[in-house]
Amino acid sequence: MKCTRCKAKAEVHLRAHNAGFCRPCYLEYFRRHVERAIARERMFTPEERILVAVSGGKDSLALWDVLVGLGYQTTGLYLGLGIGGYSDRSRETVEEFAAARALPLVVRTLADEGPGLAVPDVAVSTRRVPCAACGAMKRHFFDAAAHEGGFDVLATGHNLDDEAARLLGNVLRWQRDHLSRQRPVLAPSHPKFVRKVKPLYLLSEYETAVYAFMRGIPYVVEECPNAEGATQLLYKDALNRLEAASPGTKHAFVKEFLRSAQGLFAGDAARDVPGECQQCGMPAYGALCSFCHLVREVETKRARRAAAERPGA
Amino acid sequence: MKCTRCKAKAEVHLRAHNAGFCRPCYLEYFRRHVERAIARERMFTPEERILVAVSGGKDSLALWDVLVGLGYQTTGLYLGLGIGGYSDRSRETVEEFAAARALPLVVRTLADEGPGLAVPDVAVSTRRVPCAACGAMKRHFFDAAAHEGGFDVLATGHNLDDEAARLLGNVLRWQRDHLSRQRPVLAPSHPKFVRKVKPLYLLSEYETAVYAFMRGIPYVVEECPNAEGATQLLYKDALNRLEAASPGTKHAFVKEFLRSAQGLFAGDAARDVPGECQQCGMPAYGALCSFCHLVREVETKRARRAAAERPGA
Repeated sequence: MKCTRCKAKAEVHLRAHNAGFCRPCYLEYFRRHVERAIARERMFTPEERILVAVSGGKDSLALWDVLVGLGYQTTGLYLGLGIGGYSDRSRETVEEFAAARALPLVVRTLADEGPGLAVPDVAVSTRRVPCAACGAMKRHFFDAAAHEGGFDVLATGHNLDDEAARLLGNVLRWQRDHLSRQRPVLAPSHPKFVRKVKPLYLLSEYETAVYAFMRGIPYVVEECPNAEGATQLLYKDALNRLEAASPGTKHAFVKEFLRSAQGLFAGDAARDVPGECQQCGMPAYGALCSFCHLVREVETKRARRAAAERPGA
Repeated sequence: MKCTRCKAKAEVHLRAHNAGFCRPCYLEYFRRHVERAIARERMFTPEERILVAVSGGKDSLALWDVLVGLGYQTTGLYLGLGIGGYSDRSRETVEEFAAARALPLVVRTLADEGPGLAVPDVAVSTRRVPCAACGAMKRHFFDAAAHEGGFDVLATGHNLDDEAARLLGNVLRWQRDHLSRQRPVLAPSHPKFVRKVKPLYLLSEYETAVYAFMRGIPYVVEECPNAEGATQLLYKDALNRLEAASPGTKHAFVKEFLRSAQGLFAGDAARDVPGECQQCGMPAYGALCSFCHLVREVETKRARRAAAERPGA
């Protein structure tokens, strides 16, 4: 196969787009794709300060790399989840990436934020699925870091496969509220929130992996050990089978949803404006934000256990 | 496992409903389910005459059987598609079913309706996928037979698996026009059309198979030979995998769509009222209905071939 742009020998074949690219043209295609998505969806401008959530995986590091290449003002944010060796290797990877490029990086660690706040500890003490506990904590620290650092935008590395799997899950249960908010750009619903954007939302996992490989970006290949058997992976598997039989399925599913169906659900989006959490001051729909609610639950469980272990109890 | 209704030994386990039934209770459950669907969706009344499209498969024969048991006025309609031995065996099965119960049956055969109209011939001469040619012809003959016979309703045996697969296909491409019409009851858009209903739309393929087995209904087990590799089967396979991991997925997908999302697309349903086909007089959006358009295409191809084969041509 020949490169669709320059007719040199192609190194990568994108079945969904019926296109092939040599290495330089692929990198150009990827960069342009991200640049166009940012402009089309009005994600941010070169004047704005962008906080990029980086996990150490290919998607978030590819995103950071391409945003730096396009000349945007970026700062990385790494949140240590405390998931054993996986978290150790993720942190090292992110720190090396930032150091090699002299990029600013904010590192926060759940275990340092309070006793018993590492993901596995919270999951055990609150009897939650680890992914649920992790999601709630990530959201809180991402929001808080963006607000405290005075950033204009929070960017995440969600790719087409993530978005298609999420859309399939939302559609299988027709969760109108979730469908009304599944967009590549989410405007803040409170002055302490910042705009959230997903510049890779139409680039597949395969495309970001090829970009990271061609750019020589070292990334953590292993999946989070908690992800195994997660529903999200089931949806990805189902979509991958449909994609194999009919290339372009995922892209059409997400793109056509945003183009012609998402607006039908957006009427539902008139949610209450959040108040502020009595504990941390971040936006909250009740007296406490869901993070502080979780922290209180962990503290209660710890206090009970300590009381039970006290001599004479 | 014990029967959810009478505590006897269960013969069938419905994971999606977390229920088990002995044979008599299962038959009762199935009948009641159909009866409630008919009433809830106002499909038809005991005073109305129902034309039941029967293919010889488990779904349509189970439907006919249960409607007769519930006391409705039914007539069967079998359309011979001309798909070799499969069609021969289907016709025999349907004729034996009707004869054994002394039920009225209308039989029509595509090959008798005009030269070259059997499904395989049309597919070859018009270079269509067989399923596309078959669908257009079935729709025409079902509509025409219902109109000519003065029936009030046309009932088909589409089950939950059919509806879920169709919904997934429509959603993957966000075909708003199709989504606006995917309902268990379709009101006629022209005086020559009759109401179309799907009383089994929330009963799974497994449930109709169990009903047909328990009632001792002989049915054609083989799939149509054209169906192999059809997209619909891919969608069914994907949904079966999701159902296995999370029983009830298909039921929730279809039911919740109808309950809370279908109305959002229904705004699109303001279609033009059809006129009448210049050829056959049935409703049509252009000068010819899609069936007569297909017939004309077949005739043109046949005439061209005959001219080419004439001596001296």
